[in-house]
Amino acid sequence: MSQLSEELKEYLKETNQYEHVVTLLYWDMKTGTPKLGQAGHIDAVTYFSAKEFARNTSEKLGELLEGLSAPAEYDALDDTWKFIVRRMKRDFDRNRRIPPEVYEAYVREQAESGRAWEEAKNASDFSIFAPHLKKMIERTKEITGYTDPGREVYDALLNQYEEGMDSATIDRLFNDLKKDLVPLIQKILAAPQPDDAAFHQSFDLDAQRKVQRMLLDYIGFRRDAGTVGETEHPFTLNFCSKDVRVTNHFHEREPLSAIFSAIHEGGHAIFEQNINPEYDGTVAGSCTYMGVHESQSRFYENILGRNKNFWIPVYDKLKTLLPQLQKVSPDEFYREINHVRNSMIRTEADEVTYCMHIILRYEMEKAIFRDGITVEDLPALWNQKMQEYLQITPASDAEGILQDMHWSDGSFGYFPSYLLGSIYDGMFLEALEEELGSIDSLLADGRIGEITKWLNEKIHQYGSTRLPAEVIRNVCRKEVSAKPLIRYFTEKYTAVYGL
Amino acid sequence: MSQLSEELKEYLKETNQYEHVVTLLYWDMKTGTPKLGQAGHIDAVTYFSAKEFARNTSEKLGELLEGLSAPAEYDALDDTWKFIVRRMKRDFDRNRRIPPEVYEAYVREQAESGRAWEEAKNASDFSIFAPHLKKMIERTKEITGYTDPGREVYDALLNQYEEGMDSATIDRLFNDLKKDLVPLIQKILAAPQPDDAAFHQSFDLDAQRKVQRMLLDYIGFRRDAGTVGETEHPFTLNFCSKDVRVTNHFHEREPLSAIFSAIHEGGHAIFEQNINPEYDGTVAGSCTYMGVHESQSRFYENILGRNKNFWIPVYDKLKTLLPQLQKVSPDEFYREINHVRNSMIRTEADEVTYCMHIILRYEMEKAIFRDGITVEDLPALWNQKMQEYLQITPASDAEGILQDMHWSDGSFGYFPSYLLGSIYDGMFLEALEEELGSIDSLLADGRIGEITKWLNEKIHQYGSTRLPAEVIRNVCRKEVSAKPLIRYFTEKYTAVYGL
Repeated sequence: MSQLSEELKEYLKETNQYEHVVTLLYWDMKTGTPKLGQAGHIDAVTYFSAKEFARNTSEKLGELLEGLSAPAEYDALDDTWKFIVRRMKRDFDRNRRIPPEVYEAYVREQAESGRAWEEAKNASDFSIFAPHLKKMIERTKEITGYTDPGREVYDALLNQYEEGMDSATIDRLFNDLKKDLVPLIQKILAAPQPDDAAFHQSFDLDAQRKVQRMLLDYIGFRRDAGTVGETEHPFTLNFCSKDVRVTNHFHEREPLSAIFSAIHEGGHAIFEQNINPEYDGTVAGSCTYMGVHESQSRFYENILGRNKNFWIPVYDKLKTLLPQLQKVSPDEFYREINHVRNSMIRTEADEVTYCMHIILRYEMEKAIFRDGITVEDLPALWNQKMQEYLQITPASDAEGILQDMHWSDGSFGYFPSYLLGSIYDGMFLEALEEELGSIDSLLADGRIGEITKWLNEKIHQYGSTRLPAEVIRNVCRKEVSAKPLIRYFTEKYTAVYGL
Repeated sequence: MSQLSEELKEYLKETNQYEHVVTLLYWDMKTGTPKLGQAGHIDAVTYFSAKEFARNTSEKLGELLEGLSAPAEYDALDDTWKFIVRRMKRDFDRNRRIPPEVYEAYVREQAESGRAWEEAKNASDFSIFAPHLKKMIERTKEITGYTDPGREVYDALLNQYEEGMDSATIDRLFNDLKKDLVPLIQKILAAPQPDDAAFHQSFDLDAQRKVQRMLLDYIGFRRDAGTVGETEHPFTLNFCSKDVRVTNHFHEREPLSAIFSAIHEGGHAIFEQNINPEYDGTVAGSCTYMGVHESQSRFYENILGRNKNFWIPVYDKLKTLLPQLQKVSPDEFYREINHVRNSMIRTEADEVTYCMHIILRYEMEKAIFRDGITVEDLPALWNQKMQEYLQITPASDAEGILQDMHWSDGSFGYFPSYLLGSIYDGMFLEALEEELGSIDSLLADGRIGEITKWLNEKIHQYGSTRLPAEVIRNVCRKEVSAKPLIRYFTEKYTAVYGL
């Protein structure tokens, strides 16, 4: 190992300390900080993010990366470190173009905007959030101008969350989906719906916590390398493969919400826990492709968790923890977890209408960044699209445009990842069944560990070292297509609803 | 405000960021970090503690403090800033004498020692902890040699935890106590004991959490400026008056343990939440006198919490949350929370035998630092003293010398603070009753808020700006004495046990 690469490793090690505490401050703000303590945490996040940013854009780092990019040095690196140097050099060049004071202001504004969003959502008052959203949009445009000069803003954003992805590809995939899904959803909604009263009784919150624990253990979330917290909006966060954290929310009359959030975040966490630990502390050590990441959370949540056979090995345990389900048969349970409704809230949606929630957000983001719609007009556009796609209109901003936190910290371009994830899942399911046989049998036999192992080997271990298109090509030997997902939906829901 | 004091404030503000994340890392390590994530947190604690230490011992800070100590500058400061500059100057001079590499090694060893202690306690194997304890003792001697040159080590340590306190004073107070307490405890233990079966049924852990919540609210812990966590050993930690955190532990068959830990830590937290918020971010903004601090936690836990009248306004709520107590009368409850036993565990002890647990530890620490007893001989000495004072011998190290975490991070000299706290409490109770009237009536009437307000005004608001002896003089107009505590014990337990 050359002196330069040793130096880079030492440099990275120190930078990681700053990233580590910024991550921790964020975790604590969301899971534990009391109201009056938030300001102190925001000060610290601002301070240490600026320090981290300064290290990530320093002359010193520039020299190290420049040196290691020279052929004599670069050729001597192994493939992993070639990837790391390439990726760091690209990010360095991008970040160097952002003026530090712009970045520092952005970090502070993100934190403030996050708080305003929470307040606005609680008060169901978009006007509280609007000025912050405006600021986030402007800053995003400004910063994208620095990071991706000459590139159309929204394509640059899409590429930031799913490298290699652009709106032309997404338009094609989403349009294919829309074409078949809109009539399918209409047929489903016209069919008889199951009685869901049993699932809206009062369920003890602590019992729901125990269900989460049971499910996380069952799907393979490792306790020695992970922990759980509670937040309004569930998320997953990772320090490294050895410390990955998930959150959940618990609602007395919505036990299925916590159950599927647990499995969803568990899928994200299993991904991060199973990345090659040698990548820890480098850009390779966490998957930064959000479509690929969501494909794993949604594989666990939907492809596995909404399969009848997933529940066979654990249904008795579930009924013991939630005695209100004693009289609910496995078939009735399966029926309810695949109950399709035209509902307001994305995170509570079934897997079919969910697609329309994403398409709506994708189109909203295009309206913001391509058509320059004003922030004041956004709630009306949201409501109009909800009416168009799902024939319902939110009664309040809280169940409309304020429902998601993503825009509050400037994560524009993230939403399509969820649906890309599901599209990939359709393809992964086909590949998995070709190699391991019927997923129904694997699940029914409690052999979920074999599925996780297959995903570990095919996808997780690589962290960021394989781009989304490479992942798909390597796992499926095909280009990305929405067809397998459409087939999966059509077959499954024709059976479930007897269409 | 002079330019120098502005500069000091700016300097402090930045240093506080480091202290902030070190505090947070510590909190998270204790309450949330998974096992495999601990190493990453230890790295970060080590890194940022060293940064903080470097700032606290920098040339720059030295110049600022030197400048502000010159009469022309110093005389222009208000009393608070006079205290801050004086205290910072003293700490600076002390810390400057510690070689940075010694300090950094100490921080890392503390963290490692803490982990070894946990492991040793779980395995009930002192030999796992012994080499770390030895290191902690040697480092403590080494560092005290730098901070308090020429001073006898144990007196220096006592003074670090309770400024102005020394072993001559403690010997006097503890001997007074011993003289009356030993015969009192013997009389009590010979008297008939109540039946405690009702208190060792199975109590739902989540119900116990709700009891903690109810009690913290009742005594005045502020939710908007505080939060709770769970740890093996309960503690309180504060970022500033706006973010104070307590932990608790919950044992299925020991609900009283969690109840009194909740009130105890709540007392610490109420102290910190009510310090003058203008002191936040300075050495004045947290009470650093552990005897005074423990006096407040123990005032809530014992003087208030173990008084029959404390429970009158909340007993129905308690029974609702813990239905196993439905058949327990308030008198029986009072009897049990003042049940005196010769038991092994300090934190589970009643308020009377508790004194002997502390006197034992005080004498152990004197044996370590004065008589140079070897670490290998400590468990035997512990067991011998337990036999002598409470006529029992621990069956294992876990219920003997390994029970407390204090020595694991080098907090030698802390233990006497608990008993000093109780001694102060005897005096505070006298002063409070002279000014506000009978505490029994105040509690019975649910006027606990008036007691908290009195403590806020007399003690809490001052933070560190008044030394322990000043606090006592100002509240009680007397020098410190164990007599009031002895009187309190004698009267209370003569009645409880019908002696």
